[in-house]
Amino acid sequence: MEYDEKRCDDIQICYIGGGSQGWAWKLMSDLYLEEAISGTIRLYDIDMEAARANEAIGNRLFAYEGAKSKWNFITASSLAEGLTGADFVIISILPAGFEEMRSDVHEPEAYGIWQSVGDTVGPGGIFRALRTIPMYEVIASAVKTYCPKAWVINYTNPMSVCTGALYRIFPGIKAFGCCHEVFGAQRLLLMAIREELGIEEDDRHKLRTNVAGINHFTWITEASYQKMDLFPIYARFVEKHYKEGICDKVTDFHFMSQNKVKFDLFRRYGVIAAAGDRHLAEFVPEYLKNPETVETWGYALTPVDYRIDNKRELNEKSRAYASGEMPIPIEPSGEEGVAQMKALLGLGEIVTNVNLPNKGQLEAPHEIVVETNALFSRDSVKPVMAGALPDSVKLLMGRHMQNQEMILKAALERDTQLAFGAFLNDPITARLNLKQAKELFSRMFENTRQYLPDYESIR
Amino acid sequence: MEYDEKRCDDIQICYIGGGSQGWAWKLMSDLYLEEAISGTIRLYDIDMEAARANEAIGNRLFAYEGAKSKWNFITASSLAEGLTGADFVIISILPAGFEEMRSDVHEPEAYGIWQSVGDTVGPGGIFRALRTIPMYEVIASAVKTYCPKAWVINYTNPMSVCTGALYRIFPGIKAFGCCHEVFGAQRLLLMAIREELGIEEDDRHKLRTNVAGINHFTWITEASYQKMDLFPIYARFVEKHYKEGICDKVTDFHFMSQNKVKFDLFRRYGVIAAAGDRHLAEFVPEYLKNPETVETWGYALTPVDYRIDNKRELNEKSRAYASGEMPIPIEPSGEEGVAQMKALLGLGEIVTNVNLPNKGQLEAPHEIVVETNALFSRDSVKPVMAGALPDSVKLLMGRHMQNQEMILKAALERDTQLAFGAFLNDPITARLNLKQAKELFSRMFENTRQYLPDYESIR
Amino acid sequence: MEYDEKRCDDIQICYIGGGSQGWAWKLMSDLYLEEAISGTIRLYDIDMEAARANEAIGNRLFAYEGAKSKWNFITASSLAEGLTGADFVIISILPAGFEEMRSDVHEPEAYGIWQSVGDTVGPGGIFRALRTIPMYEVIASAVKTYCPKAWVINYTNPMSVCTGALYRIFPGIKAFGCCHEVFGAQRLLLMAIREELGIEEDDRHKLRTNVAGINHFTWITEASYQKMDLFPIYARFVEKHYKEGICDKVTDFHFMSQNKVKFDLFRRYGVIAAAGDRHLAEFVPEYLKNPETVETWGYALTPVDYRIDNKRELNEKSRAYASGEMPIPIEPSGEEGVAQMKALLGLGEIVTNVNLPNKGQLEAPHEIVVETNALFSRDSVKPVMAGALPDSVKLLMGRHMQNQEMILKAALERDTQLAFGAFLNDPITARLNLKQAKELFSRMFENTRQYLPDYESIR
Amino acid sequence: MEYDEKRCDDIQICYIGGGSQGWAWKLMSDLYLEEAISGTIRLYDIDMEAARANEAIGNRLFAYEGAKSKWNFITASSLAEGLTGADFVIISILPAGFEEMRSDVHEPEAYGIWQSVGDTVGPGGIFRALRTIPMYEVIASAVKTYCPKAWVINYTNPMSVCTGALYRIFPGIKAFGCCHEVFGAQRLLLMAIREELGIEEDDRHKLRTNVAGINHFTWITEASYQKMDLFPIYARFVEKHYKEGICDKVTDFHFMSQNKVKFDLFRRYGVIAAAGDRHLAEFVPEYLKNPETVETWGYALTPVDYRIDNKRELNEKSRAYASGEMPIPIEPSGEEGVAQMKALLGLGEIVTNVNLPNKGQLEAPHEIVVETNALFSRDSVKPVMAGALPDSVKLLMGRHMQNQEMILKAALERDTQLAFGAFLNDPITARLNLKQAKELFSRMFENTRQYLPDYESIR
Repeated sequence: MEYDEKRCDDIQICYIGGGSQGWAWKLMSDLYLEEAISGTIRLYDIDMEAARANEAIGNRLFAYEGAKSKWNFITASSLAEGLTGADFVIISILPAGFEEMRSDVHEPEAYGIWQSVGDTVGPGGIFRALRTIPMYEVIASAVKTYCPKAWVINYTNPMSVCTGALYRIFPGIKAFGCCHEVFGAQRLLLMAIREELGIEEDDRHKLRTNVAGINHFTWITEASYQKMDLFPIYARFVEKHYKEGICDKVTDFHFMSQNKVKFDLFRRYGVIAAAGDRHLAEFVPEYLKNPETVETWGYALTPVDYRIDNKRELNEKSRAYASGEMPIPIEPSGEEGVAQMKALLGLGEIVTNVNLPNKGQLEAPHEIVVETNALFSRDSVKPVMAGALPDSVKLLMGRHMQNQEMILKAALERDTQLAFGAFLNDPITARLNLKQAKELFSRMFENTRQYLPDYESIR
Repeated sequence: MEYDEKRCDDIQICYIGGGSQGWAWKLMSDLYLEEAISGTIRLYDIDMEAARANEAIGNRLFAYEGAKSKWNFITASSLAEGLTGADFVIISILPAGFEEMRSDVHEPEAYGIWQSVGDTVGPGGIFRALRTIPMYEVIASAVKTYCPKAWVINYTNPMSVCTGALYRIFPGIKAFGCCHEVFGAQRLLLMAIREELGIEEDDRHKLRTNVAGINHFTWITEASYQKMDLFPIYARFVEKHYKEGICDKVTDFHFMSQNKVKFDLFRRYGVIAAAGDRHLAEFVPEYLKNPETVETWGYALTPVDYRIDNKRELNEKSRAYASGEMPIPIEPSGEEGVAQMKALLGLGEIVTNVNLPNKGQLEAPHEIVVETNALFSRDSVKPVMAGALPDSVKLLMGRHMQNQEMILKAALERDTQLAFGAFLNDPITARLNLKQAKELFSRMFENTRQYLPDYESIR
Repeated sequence: MEYDEKRCDDIQICYIGGGSQGWAWKLMSDLYLEEAISGTIRLYDIDMEAARANEAIGNRLFAYEGAKSKWNFITASSLAEGLTGADFVIISILPAGFEEMRSDVHEPEAYGIWQSVGDTVGPGGIFRALRTIPMYEVIASAVKTYCPKAWVINYTNPMSVCTGALYRIFPGIKAFGCCHEVFGAQRLLLMAIREELGIEEDDRHKLRTNVAGINHFTWITEASYQKMDLFPIYARFVEKHYKEGICDKVTDFHFMSQNKVKFDLFRRYGVIAAAGDRHLAEFVPEYLKNPETVETWGYALTPVDYRIDNKRELNEKSRAYASGEMPIPIEPSGEEGVAQMKALLGLGEIVTNVNLPNKGQLEAPHEIVVETNALFSRDSVKPVMAGALPDSVKLLMGRHMQNQEMILKAALERDTQLAFGAFLNDPITARLNLKQAKELFSRMFENTRQYLPDYESIR
Repeated sequence: MEYDEKRCDDIQICYIGGGSQGWAWKLMSDLYLEEAISGTIRLYDIDMEAARANEAIGNRLFAYEGAKSKWNFITASSLAEGLTGADFVIISILPAGFEEMRSDVHEPEAYGIWQSVGDTVGPGGIFRALRTIPMYEVIASAVKTYCPKAWVINYTNPMSVCTGALYRIFPGIKAFGCCHEVFGAQRLLLMAIREELGIEEDDRHKLRTNVAGINHFTWITEASYQKMDLFPIYARFVEKHYKEGICDKVTDFHFMSQNKVKFDLFRRYGVIAAAGDRHLAEFVPEYLKNPETVETWGYALTPVDYRIDNKRELNEKSRAYASGEMPIPIEPSGEEGVAQMKALLGLGEIVTNVNLPNKGQLEAPHEIVVETNALFSRDSVKPVMAGALPDSVKLLMGRHMQNQEMILKAALERDTQLAFGAFLNDPITARLNLKQAKELFSRMFENTRQYLPDYESIR
């Protein structure tokens, strides 16, 4: 090998869920624009056809002469094939199909329980965890067998318990979880800088933010830009937009948020909630009593039918990209995956927020997966100590942390009874009496039973 | 001093809340029947007249020749006078009056929130804590000044946070909290022994029970009688009485419980809830949705009007006892206070359940006040390690532990905002939306404002 | 089964090291005098002949009509046979023979390192641990397989790490370690009571002592008798005997101690060291510089030759007992084993000191095996919280705790290098330079290599 | 104020020990070369004349036109005057004079105890701590009163306990401790890169090193340069120079080290010791038995007479600089102080190693001051989690950590007895018997008694 301090070639990436559309295409686009690394991406998916479509899309894309690097895409026919020799493993899977997701999100509505996303906490998050964790057990064991030294990047939700499952099964794993929700809060900070100071900064990497919390209920407790503390600036911005809200990006209606929940949380606790309002409200369901409350707070519930329509369009695009009818659009995704891989290869140190088992970086029980900043350098991810959160925020978060620990344990031990305990302890189910709760849990269990073969029904 | 290994004389007890009727009279009765100790009881009460009444009652009682020991009762006109030279301090106070209690218990009813007792958790427990803890600060400081080596026995609710406050203000204090709720569960075990085995045991001290939890949400995780494990025996007893319930003692209707909540919790978690159903339901409010649910589960809500009537009767009795019209009834109270004091004096070792800051006796955050067994011997109370609770129980308890820590902190720092955080985190307020919650909190704050002079209103 | 609350019959005890002479005979004698329990003792020993001798001795003994209970002794030909169906397992083994012990105790003398016992800490204790722990792995696995619910009582040294090994291999084991060294300190307290107060108490169970520490470096931090604090009484006793010392029992010269080390430690730290001086000095080797220092402090070094002679005599006795030439002497051993078993069977609750993994009973790292009081009741051993030790004692103890953790880890992982780290960290080897230390370690390793087959030599 | 993102003006620095020569001049030189910041330095020293000399030197220096920024030096006549309004506080004091240092370093030699530096651990470090910590109490209180929001940078030894004392007295303090010893190990890594790879890198900031440990006993557990793991490269370098050693910088003989101790520790433990051999040997005194051992290991003992001579020269220089006879030499000091201050002002983020109370960044007891990397950004220092150290290193370090905790406690409580406990627990005093240890401790106590007015003699 010719040593070149500025680049790494022949990198082997195994992409589990390699038939994924959104995430896989973003990765392709980011790699297309990055000249420092090259190699092979092995796409593994239980839907092998989807993987093959991405193989075609990827290889066609990197045949363009504009590509700044050379990547080869192949479809792996087994986990073993995908993982053996991998330097990086990306996991981005959809556990089960839309019917299961429909049960997660909409079944509780009959009991007056509304969920804006349904993939993290609440009834939806719990059932999604119960069926995903067994899959993660398989993945973690395979990583241990085939590529124990690879870095594993998880994108699947529920983030905390999925990432946690990897470590429980293979404690020596080098895994972390990535989520872009914090970036939205950083975009808001850039908007505040523009509005309040008239400075046209649009690179969120120029901000310094201290991140503390759990995924989708993450907080920025310190923020600065150059020599300035951004908290007073953000406070003015919040007051100005408190009533009407303000969007930080263009989205479809069903993903819409005007950040009013975020602004209210800032008023209440003095720290910056750093996830979309649709996620935040699921942790603090006073904002999510019913569709009217949701409307008042200016965000949207995302129906599964919308996701199905969306998927149909994506399938169309996939066909068009794979066949060459349409070029895949190239634009920076805003994700950090490629930057993280570069840092891990020794191509520059970065600090960014990731999900890792707590070893003390957050004042919270150890081993629970938390989201804080971490220092990435060659073959090393070291969390940065996150400092304290306000007591009232700890109070809100403590319950969810406890729940996540128990959900993970319930899934690993296939203990349906304990899962039901977590279900009852979620703030969103508090409106149910015991009989209703049992009924709803049982219905959701039956709806998705196909993916829960090792679990017993609740007593 | 003539050494007599079997007795201790000249003991000085300071009784704070010395005008108390129920508790003070029970103590008198127990001392009357106990020959090993004698001395002086200094009654201190902000209602000095009530203290004087007890002075009269006590001195009249111990003038009877049937008294097995000699106790002298005096009224102390200040904490300083009461505490100086005290060997023991008993605290049993009623923080504020019935109007405040009415606010604690009944104000939330307008918002669909029912409380069976209202003195431990929930809106009632929180407000009771907010006004009691400042009083406990005064007491702890006075103990530090006037009798730092005295043993302090707390009977006031909310037990956990009141006992905790003593330690936060004076970390060197030798205090513990006592509650008789566990004894009720032990009585049920005796009933089970009788029914299932035909053994007529009526001394609960013959049982061996391992106690673990927090006050009023305490659990028996192991129980034996002679060579027998009582769990299978209790399980049969529970199944037999699950539907109809069974009372473990004669009470007025408003204190009634048929133990159906306790039996249901046993079915759910496999361990024995060891407090009255009226208390238990406040921790797991699926049992306390509304008066109908309460009726279904076979226990009673205790209205404050009933307490007022009751108080009127007690006042009558007090007059009659003090004047000598009526003799005070002498019967063992079933409480452990006298036995504990004897053990602390070196007159025999005992093991019993008490409330103490967690130093590791329970798998739970340190410093939170927990209830476990402890070994009492001469000038020494050492908690017994309680072992593990089932995960589902930990989950239920964890939230209340966190809340109690925050309530204590909120009270010590007069932080109304944090108190409101705890209020929102209580499972019983989960049905409220944010606006309603704020409104209820504010009303309860205004109702009892006279006792909350140092706290600001919430924002 | 006919229920008799006062007795338990058909108890199955497996005695590993069943050819033992001292301990096994003591147990026989104690059982002979105890009427509440009866059953079978299965003697397992790698020296099966020794086990058979004890079988003969035991059966002959219980044929006497004076026996208060009936016990049957049989020799088990395998661990499986001995353990299957056992209610209790006693472990009291001699790891390897006298030549290995000679290496443990005497090899270091060439380097100016003297050890009074050589079985707990220091070079001798470390090597004894390295060869014993692999045997304990076998035992713990067998218990897990054949009698996972049995109570396991360990008497083998080094106590802390042997007991710890059982839990590391089978975390669900119900094991504790017993040692009588604390009883000696209690005898001294009885002597103090006699001398200072003129009270003729000779039952150490009447004392209340709080025990805290690690085996053979255990401390009594509170002691009372009836209503009296024994600390001022002991302090006077110490001052009176500080210079000349005083023996608490009759022993052979080579086991002799005049308690002068114990008295000096009391002067220095204000708490009562509760092990024989021969053990204590090995933890604080300022008392063990050389034979002259030892003489000054009034205790003896125990040579292995003396043990060999002693063993010869025991063999003689064994023959005589087994053949019936001589009757086995019957007297209470003063050990607690039988009382502990009775309590575990539900025949009366006791509090006594035992060795258990730290779960918080001592302010020290968790999982290290510590010695504190525990409450024994039916099928339950719950440690009593031990409270704090003086800082200076913590400092002395901390180093040994750390070492024991590392020795256990080194043995479980067969990590000779780490064992050498512990060897260097022991206070007694501090006088060596690195070259000498390596040399001594290597010689001891070679001497006992036969029992260290899985370990590599040090680098 | 005109906003300039690239600079900060009017910064107020209070320099306690402002008459210092080495450190103060280095700071002047670094500021001279730095254009981004300017302001005032208030020199406070109990030797006010020395402060005035530095005032003259500083003001003369910044009058040169080559100065890249403008700094004004003034002498503060009191702590209050120096601290009021300060943005930064630098502490670099010499506790007591050379006679006390002579006692620290040389008195133990009569007992066969040699110390190469004598300011960190061992008899010298302990006595230095005992007399410095009371001064630090005064400083911490003054910071709390006069500039509670200032950042405090400590340079005084013993680093760990001095920094710890600041936090014990004023828990809200924003302090950290800085030491350049790690930089030496980084220089060695650069040498290895040059020798092994032929790459001429001379900027240690290009290395990525993970730092873990306690001051002067710090370790590099991961090191990389660009895409390369430096551990195999360093291993080859160590083997090549193991026998002869190699110096990483030019020094006077009395500060000399050939890194042979460092190389040997690498062989033994596989991680890079990151302090000078003179410091390391004091933690592992097998390398410091006597002057011959020291010579073998290729480093020097630093006699106090040499420091006295050195001081004389510095006084000469001081006069010459102050009078303008000689220009103060301008060269980058290699220290990080100025870079740290810039980062804290918001002028660029850096990662560097500092000393802070452990909140979980190291697997070690909390609150002990540890040295790890930290992320510096605007008004924020957040430790980076350091990961695990090898068990054998933990074993060595554990004892010193425990000792430092006790020394700090002993000093804060003026508990000479506990200090003596730490003295005995230091590995370097292990060769003494109790009588000798007491004698040496007493002599050192008497020698420096003037600075220990609140401490009692040992018993």
